[in-house]
Amino acid sequence: MPTLAEINEMDRAAFTAVLGGLFEHSPWVAEETWDRRLGLSSLGEAGPFREAAQLQAELCATMRGASRERQLALIRAHPDLAGRLALAGKLTAESTREQASAGLTGMGADEFGAFQKLNDAYRARFGFPFIICARLNARAAILSAMQTRISNTPEQEHAAALAEIEKIAGLRLQDVLKT
Amino acid sequence: MPTLAEINEMDRAAFTAVLGGLFEHSPWVAEETWDRRLGLSSLGEAGPFREAAQLQAELCATMRGASRERQLALIRAHPDLAGRLALAGKLTAESTREQASAGLTGMGADEFGAFQKLNDAYRARFGFPFIICARLNARAAILSAMQTRISNTPEQEHAAALAEIEKIAGLRLQDVLKT
Repeated sequence: MPTLAEINEMDRAAFTAVLGGLFEHSPWVAEETWDRRLGLSSLGEAGPFREAAQLQAELCATMRGASRERQLALIRAHPDLAGRLALAGKLTAESTREQASAGLTGMGADEFGAFQKLNDAYRARFGFPFIICARLNARAAILSAMQTRISNTPEQEHAAALAEIEKIAGLRLQDVLKT
Repeated sequence: MPTLAEINEMDRAAFTAVLGGLFEHSPWVAEETWDRRLGLSSLGEAGPFREAAQLQAELCATMRGASRERQLALIRAHPDLAGRLALAGKLTAESTREQASAGLTGMGADEFGAFQKLNDAYRARFGFPFIICARLNARAAILSAMQTRISNTPEQEHAAALAEIEKIAGLRLQDVLKT
């Protein structure tokens, strides 16, 4: 696992290879954050990314600065929780671990059925999947959040999805930097 | 109150005048975030700050990129909650409103005394004031957080302070943009 100092030395391709998975199927967030180094080095006091929290903040700023359409594509790149892709073993390595940590694997058919129903209802209402940071929420909390958030407005859920994606990316960054 | 479009048109001085109060006694965060516009306009798809969440993310990235010393100065620029400055009516306008919203004004002498004691113990341990977003926490929750967080490490409390400062700045930004 690379250190932050090593990441600071990487070219755009290596940087994206290492951090491209932080935002689900959306390596452009890492790529365009690398471009920020140029601006930062003229402002900055030390190397481009002095600590993990700064790198995380710049990644989030890249995501927040993207057009609504690209944000929506990022949101839509996420799999359902306990959904069909999970059942078929077709999640990214990161999502597989995260969903397992929330106890979303190995449920009985009844509980799987409850997730499918809520997933489908959420998607039908908002046009994108329900996103929550699975590592920060156990199965019961996730079910309860699904039931609550489905009453929100599309605007609120777009914002909630991006906020959860930031938490997911922050934890994935910690994994990448773990020594 | 300016709109985001108006803020995007402002020069550095006006931008800092409008947003300089988001980070307590630390207008440099706004100032240096204005400088980011230059980098962003070469990357960006639309105007420098397309929405409030993006401006907020860039402000936070500026704070996260500052040296440890400047971050510490920012933390130290915050007043105690229900502290001596509050009693003397010497808080910034923002802090005055925020502390009032948490029910920190007009307490009895006993409860004020409890706050002073915890404030002093926290400062003695960490060398900076206890920071929490008062608008998101009622008086009892704040007291309880003080009692818990005082057992944290200095590293954890430096991180907690910056995370709370981000929440405070986010709510202050909403106030600035409110129409």
